[in-house]
Amino acid sequence: MNTADRLGERKIIETIWKHLDKAPIISVPFGDDVSAIEYGDDNLVVLKTDMLVGKTDVPPCMSYWQAARKAVVMNVSDLAAKGVKPLGLLVSLGIPRNLTKQDIEQIGKGLNAGVREYDAYVLGGDTSETHDLIISVAAFGLAKKRALILRSGAHPEDIVATTGLFGLTSSGLKILKEKLAAPRKIRKKLVDAVLMPYARLKEGLALAKTGATTASIDSSDGLAWSLHEISSASNVGFIIDAPPIAQETYRFAKLHNLDPLALSFYGGEEYELIATIKPEHWRRVKEAVVQQGGNLLKIGKTTAKKTLLVKYGGKLIKIEARGYEHFKYNGSD
Amino acid sequence: MNTADRLGERKIIETIWKHLDKAPIISVPFGDDVSAIEYGDDNLVVLKTDMLVGKTDVPPCMSYWQAARKAVVMNVSDLAAKGVKPLGLLVSLGIPRNLTKQDIEQIGKGLNAGVREYDAYVLGGDTSETHDLIISVAAFGLAKKRALILRSGAHPEDIVATTGLFGLTSSGLKILKEKLAAPRKIRKKLVDAVLMPYARLKEGLALAKTGATTASIDSSDGLAWSLHEISSASNVGFIIDAPPIAQETYRFAKLHNLDPLALSFYGGEEYELIATIKPEHWRRVKEAVVQQGGNLLKIGKTTAKKTLLVKYGGKLIKIEARGYEHFKYNGSD
Repeated sequence: MNTADRLGERKIIETIWKHLDKAPIISVPFGDDVSAIEYGDDNLVVLKTDMLVGKTDVPPCMSYWQAARKAVVMNVSDLAAKGVKPLGLLVSLGIPRNLTKQDIEQIGKGLNAGVREYDAYVLGGDTSETHDLIISVAAFGLAKKRALILRSGAHPEDIVATTGLFGLTSSGLKILKEKLAAPRKIRKKLVDAVLMPYARLKEGLALAKTGATTASIDSSDGLAWSLHEISSASNVGFIIDAPPIAQETYRFAKLHNLDPLALSFYGGEEYELIATIKPEHWRRVKEAVVQQGGNLLKIGKTTAKKTLLVKYGGKLIKIEARGYEHFKYNGSD
Repeated sequence: MNTADRLGERKIIETIWKHLDKAPIISVPFGDDVSAIEYGDDNLVVLKTDMLVGKTDVPPCMSYWQAARKAVVMNVSDLAAKGVKPLGLLVSLGIPRNLTKQDIEQIGKGLNAGVREYDAYVLGGDTSETHDLIISVAAFGLAKKRALILRSGAHPEDIVATTGLFGLTSSGLKILKEKLAAPRKIRKKLVDAVLMPYARLKEGLALAKTGATTASIDSSDGLAWSLHEISSASNVGFIIDAPPIAQETYRFAKLHNLDPLALSFYGGEEYELIATIKPEHWRRVKEAVVQQGGNLLKIGKTTAKKTLLVKYGGKLIKIEARGYEHFKYNGSD
């Protein structure tokens, strides 16, 4: 029988979506990082919801404080990718019966720490009793329609850039879940990438403000999958000639005979932004992001031909269309 | 130890809330049916989130279609109580591994049926893998600040009214959960109240439009609890001299030697609106609701003295501050 675990997350979403009437005025196509609805002249209410589930999203050693903060980051990251400042968040909590008052306080503090990092507030919420910890967040912001960066605006010969390096989270998850070892110096960085992710909000806002960012996505489903998403929304290919692999990823991979490319491209739960930028504006865009305290790394370019390739170890390798997906465990290597 | 099951839902919410920084501009006090944030001149984005959980919110015999529809109704009902039309909903789904494709299709269809009943749309969402079915909905609408009906505006001597009669759902739950019997004719009505609840949106919009509704709340936590909420937010008491008890509630109660008053006042999951209305405008307000195809039943009045009383069986009885609460099973009788 076709059960959820065989269908996988994306087929489930497709199945649900097929049965939904489409709103007449849609400013953001289904499947983009956020949803939006128009009001007044050229204005959008931008919305995002994402659910943190204990079993799948809270790795060993992550505290309740960190889990609650992460639930916020997951949602802010999607708004960041569109260049939208979060104004308020609502939180639906599912609390297991055996959580202590201290645990619940940590959840409250973690939620608050998360929203305040991004200058937003928790406006309200709801609590239910659940078997496993559930923190379902809905975030919203306001935007001008023209200012929103969709996944669909990339053109051939745009520069592809990321706000940081990859492979830290998938390495960190191997340390936490599979108990793989790592030297103390890099261990902290890899584990922190999992436990204390950051949404690239200031970077996303800066990217949107330049007017030269043609497409953007967050990388929470993995670098490879996110590139494929932009590819299919914008109808372009990619050639990545400077794969954004962190030094720590290389070192961890070497230690355990893992593939650094796989760790960096087919992981997930990384919250870097991936953006395509008009090449004539590259310097200005990079400067705008750096001025906000962020970074922007040129990793390649878009192509008219719809193939996704990465130059690695002197070879051109095809970037597969896989990444993190709930229900399916087609992980990072 | 102070665990979640001992704290109960309201203490948990209080614990979380204590640790949250408060947004500087709050148009709706915490704890009201919805949250809101101001934009521009006198405009509000109004938001609500509520989570349906299989174990606690989906009684036996409720289909996936009905559960998904109910998750929508739960959220629309809160917007309705404030007089706000829902524009869009986001849905975070938690799907157990063993759900079939057919089950998932039913969820999609049920979500769509729910939103279309209220002329809204599902704009987006997210899917995760969970142990139990979770349907977390976030609904939003736009409103003029002055048009929003809060819980806090009731004055002494206002008329108290409801959009319907009570006790059907708690009776229906006893049929479904405790297998109590009922004659076929009333059984259907009682069970339908549980499986096919309706949000009183047209009533809520009409109530708000009159400008004569001073406070309003939905009754999903039970009639008694909702009256207590208005009481504490508006600093008034109530005297209910025509308790809104359905004929079917009386009949079902008699059959099983239950208390019709308890079934009607201390149930929950009922989605009638409870409103307080300026007495000089009563006829006009009632007509406005009836014209929209709804009903408005005068059940009593507010009092300056902060006691909550109901006239029943020739006696004045105190209305206790209890109702449906997650974690705590202080149910309807």
